[in-house]
Amino acid sequence: MIQIFVTGGTFDKEYNFVTGKLFFQDSNLPEMLDRGRCTLDLNVRTLMMVDSLEITDLDRENIANNCRGVETNQILITHGTDTMVETAEYLAQKAIAGKTIVLTGAMIPYAFGSSSDGFFNLGSALAFVQALPPGVYVAMNGRYFNWDAVQKNRSTGYFEAV
Amino acid sequence: MIQIFVTGGTFDKEYNFVTGKLFFQDSNLPEMLDRGRCTLDLNVRTLMMVDSLEITDLDRENIANNCRGVETNQILITHGTDTMVETAEYLAQKAIAGKTIVLTGAMIPYAFGSSSDGFFNLGSALAFVQALPPGVYVAMNGRYFNWDAVQKNRSTGYFEAV
Amino acid sequence: MIQIFVTGGTFDKEYNFVTGKLFFQDSNLPEMLDRGRCTLDLNVRTLMMVDSLEITDLDRENIANNCRGVETNQILITHGTDTMVETAEYLAQKAIAGKTIVLTGAMIPYAFGSSSDGFFNLGSALAFVQALPPGVYVAMNGRYFNWDAVQKNRSTGYFEAV
Amino acid sequence: MIQIFVTGGTFDKEYNFVTGKLFFQDSNLPEMLDRGRCTLDLNVRTLMMVDSLEITDLDRENIANNCRGVETNQILITHGTDTMVETAEYLAQKAIAGKTIVLTGAMIPYAFGSSSDGFFNLGSALAFVQALPPGVYVAMNGRYFNWDAVQKNRSTGYFEAV
Repeated sequence: MIQIFVTGGTFDKEYNFVTGKLFFQDSNLPEMLDRGRCTLDLNVRTLMMVDSLEITDLDRENIANNCRGVETNQILITHGTDTMVETAEYLAQKAIAGKTIVLTGAMIPYAFGSSSDGFFNLGSALAFVQALPPGVYVAMNGRYFNWDAVQKNRSTGYFEAV
Repeated sequence: MIQIFVTGGTFDKEYNFVTGKLFFQDSNLPEMLDRGRCTLDLNVRTLMMVDSLEITDLDRENIANNCRGVETNQILITHGTDTMVETAEYLAQKAIAGKTIVLTGAMIPYAFGSSSDGFFNLGSALAFVQALPPGVYVAMNGRYFNWDAVQKNRSTGYFEAV
Repeated sequence: MIQIFVTGGTFDKEYNFVTGKLFFQDSNLPEMLDRGRCTLDLNVRTLMMVDSLEITDLDRENIANNCRGVETNQILITHGTDTMVETAEYLAQKAIAGKTIVLTGAMIPYAFGSSSDGFFNLGSALAFVQALPPGVYVAMNGRYFNWDAVQKNRSTGYFEAV
Repeated sequence: MIQIFVTGGTFDKEYNFVTGKLFFQDSNLPEMLDRGRCTLDLNVRTLMMVDSLEITDLDRENIANNCRGVETNQILITHGTDTMVETAEYLAQKAIAGKTIVLTGAMIPYAFGSSSDGFFNLGSALAFVQALPPGVYVAMNGRYFNWDAVQKNRSTGYFEAV
């Protein structure tokens, strides 16, 4: 069984046509898994719905506790890209032994249709969580990075090995 | 480096608005990799553009030769779903030692927009080809299957372990 | 009040992922009107769901009867493009006096997403049915044509004045 | 010939994946007209690319001058919805006699794909500009409104007759 924890981020942002602002509603994950015709044994739980710039260490402790609390060793976390690396680092240092934890997100909201990278990233992250050995990883741009060897380039929006 | 071989299949079918029939034009892969913001080192080569019901053992020998001929050990093949398992079996029996070969496709053409599973499957297959040990695999429905342990259920359209 | 009669055509074709064939399910019109945020007073009724190459004069008599039978003078008909002009001619000759009847359709199914012309054509046809004087018209390619001054160019797929 | 003046608005907003903000790039109109398979004789000119909350009376005078300056009597203006009615009123009071001027826009950016009303509104507005008598109109929600008989309901986002 694979556990998916939803934390928000661009991945799940929607457009409010009255205010013209981006906001969070329900996660797009169930629809995406359905469209992907996914037959994996999955459990999806929303932990929070926030912009990753607003994620605090208290939130990260909450995520870590949830990772520890589930029986499965395969965990996928959807997360905003701005602080995805910080959360990966936090989880790695909490020494959640024996679990494969993959964080992914999107640069363009899934709700924005044919320009979004989210659906591709979800397929990629679900595969990595099944096939990689225990550890904490970031899956973006078709690649996976160990938590301590990645940074987001804030001017290009791409993740890079460091 | 990852080698991608394109063979056609529903994945790359387009709609001809004059005849109302499905047909093949250029592969959607370059656009999909761009949209997926993919930064992997990839080489894409189209071997054929056919419905997989029309793939012969001569075609399969061509695919096998191409798999042998490239230096890389990571090979992704886009393929129609109807005979994807047969091609996987053929490649496995040709004993292409030491290479990870992943076949994927789509149930709904990528060109048909927001209902297609193709973009998800591509992300998934690219991840599996990086993370799985040498062997021949089918990647569909978010999962991977060993070539000798999978069948397509022709009434539901899902791939199943056997 | 505007009466919409649905007869099928490419406009409403769907892709069957098991057989790989196009087929008809329910009309996309309710979803399209919702997405168009349409607040017109509309009544939608499906008369048939067929490829327009299969429409017979019996079917056309059925459509004509329905046009006569409704009280409103504003009628929109979704129809396959191949025989749209024939049906327009049939309705015009049945001398349904005092009614504005607009036929429209699509060259690419609405279900095929971001390449379809259907949503644009629907907006166009709904506007023409409100603003044109009584008569029978074809609305395609952003334009309207009188029933007796139009033909479909079968090699390009565009409607032309004759 | 129909003259289209582009002024910006939600219709043409794009998503900047680096900053996460909405912004203006080139207008989507050429792509939309192509997708709509539009064969009308059109001239498209971008006058400004702004959020309609930022449109001043100086901008409106610029729009009015352009309306007067073109020879054609059929003019379509894409415009943000927030002050669309104000601009319609301004143009009406400038007494541009003998011209049919239709303003339209979108509640959801065209670039956001399958949820946007923009493509439907464009089809609708292009039809109204061909079929309505001289005057200044707002075309939204599938309907047309005279400039002096419409308001935008800011809590629902729908245009209403007053």
